[in-house]
Amino acid sequence: MEVIDSFFSFGGEQKVIKHYSSVNNCEMQFSIYLPPISKSKKVPIIWYLSGLTCTHANVTEKGEFRKKASELGVAIVCPDTSPRGDNVPDEKDNWQFGSGAGFYLDATQEPYKNNYNMYSYINKELPNIVFENFSIEKKCQGIMGHSMGGHGALIMALRNPEQYLSCSAFAPIVQPSSAEWSSTAFQKYLGEDKVNWRTYDATLLIEDGARFSNILIDQGMKDPFLNDGLRPHVLKNICDKFNLPLNLRMQEGYDHSYYFISTFMNDHIEWHYKNFNL
Amino acid sequence: MEVIDSFFSFGGEQKVIKHYSSVNNCEMQFSIYLPPISKSKKVPIIWYLSGLTCTHANVTEKGEFRKKASELGVAIVCPDTSPRGDNVPDEKDNWQFGSGAGFYLDATQEPYKNNYNMYSYINKELPNIVFENFSIEKKCQGIMGHSMGGHGALIMALRNPEQYLSCSAFAPIVQPSSAEWSSTAFQKYLGEDKVNWRTYDATLLIEDGARFSNILIDQGMKDPFLNDGLRPHVLKNICDKFNLPLNLRMQEGYDHSYYFISTFMNDHIEWHYKNFNL
Repeated sequence: MEVIDSFFSFGGEQKVIKHYSSVNNCEMQFSIYLPPISKSKKVPIIWYLSGLTCTHANVTEKGEFRKKASELGVAIVCPDTSPRGDNVPDEKDNWQFGSGAGFYLDATQEPYKNNYNMYSYINKELPNIVFENFSIEKKCQGIMGHSMGGHGALIMALRNPEQYLSCSAFAPIVQPSSAEWSSTAFQKYLGEDKVNWRTYDATLLIEDGARFSNILIDQGMKDPFLNDGLRPHVLKNICDKFNLPLNLRMQEGYDHSYYFISTFMNDHIEWHYKNFNL
Repeated sequence: MEVIDSFFSFGGEQKVIKHYSSVNNCEMQFSIYLPPISKSKKVPIIWYLSGLTCTHANVTEKGEFRKKASELGVAIVCPDTSPRGDNVPDEKDNWQFGSGAGFYLDATQEPYKNNYNMYSYINKELPNIVFENFSIEKKCQGIMGHSMGGHGALIMALRNPEQYLSCSAFAPIVQPSSAEWSSTAFQKYLGEDKVNWRTYDATLLIEDGARFSNILIDQGMKDPFLNDGLRPHVLKNICDKFNLPLNLRMQEGYDHSYYFISTFMNDHIEWHYKNFNL
């Protein structure tokens, strides 16, 4: 693990870290914001998963999360969205697959399965690295994300309710296995048999019995991907069907950008913090 | 004037505008954040001048000013830092001159004087365009800036105390005529005779009798440019000499980046707002 950047911000430290990932078989980068507290005290953590094409940098620069994280004393970790590098198979002209489009799953197909293992990376390898190197309270983890990263946060929480105390999303892809902009990627990463796609699809996970106590979602009503890629109503319907609580807030006037995310970032951080019951 | 981007954010609108500048003889872009208030009410305005190499975009994306501007009902305008385009003379490999380095002065030397007139642009042309097209209270203007833009804010306020009610800066270049990274640019834009540089230099303006009621400056103590380019103590000394109030806050641990700027952005907006006496 190597600290490649470190900035003082809102009394805490915004760091960028480089390390070798053994599940993705390449070097990976992530950012971590450490709030200004006593170094001996362990702090709660929120994982933020970014959307298609992003690296750790987008939300680190534009997400406006540091002020609230500093006030509440929460660490925020922002991983990359996929493996990268000359040795990682990619489709350079396709923004919906390969580099920047890991979809937070473990690929089973050649030539991707050696590198595209973002599910295990986010759920196991990265937490181990973070817990080993920083003073984090493992029992207080929340997870959130945007768009493809919203999908990531939902499936991580639904599959690991014992690991995460809270889950939220900005404009998530709620049913990636049937959305045009993700189903092609699922096919390439996971193969033709759609049975194998179900554990990476929030709505199908719920249909198959997965549960998570409470989820907050903000969705812009002027989001250009609202009715094709994202479709929050599909998740709403399945939650209603199974009497699951879902706090879905449709936000008038907002689009899919960081101008939308940053507007509601404080709400999300406060909501996670409340669920930590500290 | 053409609106080329518009995003809903913190209940207001973040716009990017393109227009032809007759003082710079080229197309220019700026961003404007309009807070969520009644369209009939006029709102106060703060001009934010950016530093070397920046366009309007850097602080618009990373400055974290919208939440507070929304709460207080203040418009924030972020201009570009220089003229740009194929017809504008430039030194492509020099980040301290030409494109991105207008230094907020009106050039008198060939071949720059036809385009590099950022003083008149910020002080006259741009306000006219903004006042004509948006519902702004002309009597409530504040000006702030970072680094080269901090220099810009200081000289605009010192030369036009009737126009601006307040002035603040993040890590400003306080004496550009003697700082290595700006004096070469001054020579090219303004010629050899240093007498003509004095009206674009905050400390020399004060020496020559210019006054501004109160100025807030935040300066990071880990700023790599602290003792060469910036030198806030030079301004402090001249203010002390003439018994002028200067609120200079040296901030431990902070550098020259937007991680520093965003940390203190709320303080600056609140400070301007207080000086508006609304």
